[in-house]
Amino acid sequence: MAAETHRRYVILAEGAFGELPSKTAMGVLRYGRDPVLAVIDSSRAGRSSSEWLGPEHDVPVVATLGEALLRRPTALLIGIAPQGGKIPPAWRAIIAAAIEAGLDIVSGLHEFISDDPEFSALAASHGVELIDHRRPPERQEVASGRAHRPGSHVILTVGSDCAIGKMTVALELRRAALDAGLSAVFVPTGQTGIMIEGWGASVDRVVSDFVNGTAEWLVERAEQMGDWIFVEGQGSIDHPAYSAVTLGLIHGATPHAMVLVHESGRLSHHGWEGEDGRGSPLKSVAQNIALYETVANAVAPSRVAAVALNTVALSEEEARAEIERIAEQTGLPVDDPYRFGPERLFAGLRAALEGEVTSPENLTEAHG
Amino acid sequence: MAAETHRRYVILAEGAFGELPSKTAMGVLRYGRDPVLAVIDSSRAGRSSSEWLGPEHDVPVVATLGEALLRRPTALLIGIAPQGGKIPPAWRAIIAAAIEAGLDIVSGLHEFISDDPEFSALAASHGVELIDHRRPPERQEVASGRAHRPGSHVILTVGSDCAIGKMTVALELRRAALDAGLSAVFVPTGQTGIMIEGWGASVDRVVSDFVNGTAEWLVERAEQMGDWIFVEGQGSIDHPAYSAVTLGLIHGATPHAMVLVHESGRLSHHGWEGEDGRGSPLKSVAQNIALYETVANAVAPSRVAAVALNTVALSEEEARAEIERIAEQTGLPVDDPYRFGPERLFAGLRAALEGEVTSPENLTEAHG
Repeated sequence: MAAETHRRYVILAEGAFGELPSKTAMGVLRYGRDPVLAVIDSSRAGRSSSEWLGPEHDVPVVATLGEALLRRPTALLIGIAPQGGKIPPAWRAIIAAAIEAGLDIVSGLHEFISDDPEFSALAASHGVELIDHRRPPERQEVASGRAHRPGSHVILTVGSDCAIGKMTVALELRRAALDAGLSAVFVPTGQTGIMIEGWGASVDRVVSDFVNGTAEWLVERAEQMGDWIFVEGQGSIDHPAYSAVTLGLIHGATPHAMVLVHESGRLSHHGWEGEDGRGSPLKSVAQNIALYETVANAVAPSRVAAVALNTVALSEEEARAEIERIAEQTGLPVDDPYRFGPERLFAGLRAALEGEVTSPENLTEAHG
Repeated sequence: MAAETHRRYVILAEGAFGELPSKTAMGVLRYGRDPVLAVIDSSRAGRSSSEWLGPEHDVPVVATLGEALLRRPTALLIGIAPQGGKIPPAWRAIIAAAIEAGLDIVSGLHEFISDDPEFSALAASHGVELIDHRRPPERQEVASGRAHRPGSHVILTVGSDCAIGKMTVALELRRAALDAGLSAVFVPTGQTGIMIEGWGASVDRVVSDFVNGTAEWLVERAEQMGDWIFVEGQGSIDHPAYSAVTLGLIHGATPHAMVLVHESGRLSHHGWEGEDGRGSPLKSVAQNIALYETVANAVAPSRVAAVALNTVALSEEEARAEIERIAEQTGLPVDDPYRFGPERLFAGLRAALEGEVTSPENLTEAHG
């Protein structure tokens, strides 16, 4: 059995690698600490993750579990986060075969692998672990109105949509803060972040009465680890299905500042592109800033202090022009921190935040 | 064992009867269908519920379970909804004694009575039922963007705080709609409403990713039962602890109209009165209307179409003056439907809603 902290992964992303539902696969490939030996997706077999993630992430895509096993992995990681979080029925046979081949299973689905009678029986007989990273913490408490530790800067990424890069932006900003010699912490609030960082809580799996309280608690733990705290946001405040989780994070974390993540050119909420008559158009950057500041300030003072653009759909020239345009429109620091590096965006954020919120009086007012 | 639909209740409200934490007791006494024979609260023994609820609700308050048993109840109902929903440790002995006396236990706490090893063992040996009304539905689905049934009017009560009367207002408005000869449905979203109505879901107990989807599903069920649908709201959009649930209900139910419930004279969020430095002042009626309309319209068109004042702290003359003042300030129908009857408020709401939202085109736009 593999040790908890060192697994050799094969990632299952059948039919989805490189697309939005495989954001868990992408996040672990980009930011995970343990090696990934192969990705399973028969529709993209023979290609490499470097096509999507750049030359520093050269992992082969293979067609079958059998091929992946030749590389001697110790765990199969479920690399998708589908809407609703069910185990895809077509994947059951692959998961079962992986268990029989002696692999641990690491999953972030809502439907827990370890609660499945077939999988848990198989795992017991083959001596492997089933790890459900989305299983909520035992702790279930409502928010208490805790004031932030003096000296901390709590920054929450918020988005104009789900699956738009909020985790990536938080991780990139944390890296910039560390590179600047500061003590900085990433707070995982979803399964991929937890897989990458080894702690956190999947707030969308927490009983709804305790979402705000769980977010407050995660920030409390982070404030014991460092000064610059980057909380991974979830969903979006105008998302028809996920807005409850988004608001609980905002009101529970009571961030000093928010970073708005927006994808240039995305027109509708992911999965709500208008088929079946349920279109749900994205709001503009300016509308999002106004909406997030209104809802955050309903509980504690906060503001959008920077905009992180996801410019994947644009050429480099177009991207730089769009960044300039949004910066002029909003008067805020704007950049694509994944494409152009997080340093400039973090410097802008730091300039906006330092000198603020350092006196205990201000902190007490945060819940006044 | 008592039949599911006909129990004879004794309500446990030790130390709390008539106060806000006993809102479950009050709701069941006011609106429940099954008889209540006694309330247990040793600090108020010898008094009657009529002191709080009027002469039509004359139930004696007794000091002990033993006294209550003389009236031959068939079930003990846990009559409080404390913050966090834990079983009060001091009540464990009373609950155990009630089971030993052959009573079913009916609870709306987060901590399930039927999951407690001591209680479930006792219940098995004494042949009684343990009913946890807050247990969430098996169904766990994200919202789908379902359009409302043509002809339905979906009205959600929202509040400037938790524990302010949102369930009561929804029940009173439903009664007025029925009295007006309309088909009308109350949608319970909390444990007290479920105890009263016999269906519904405790949305604050649902996994947060499925709050919006559960609210959508409850409205779908209600639209099969009638045309005028009054959805019980939860929490408040600016509540530091409960706002996630509030927003999930708004974006999941996508109400045609909201009724704002406000208590005249309440200054801070319940339980957040400023001890321990965590004061959280209530916003004004006008601020609440603006905030609720902003967040609701982020997903689907809605508006606050009436204001229900809880004037319990005012004399009758003061109450009428305050109702007049808020009506002038907002330009909306305003009344205290519990104190002065729901007919006027419902008539105003009906006038505002009829002639709207009846064409299928408008309905499709509700999720555009």
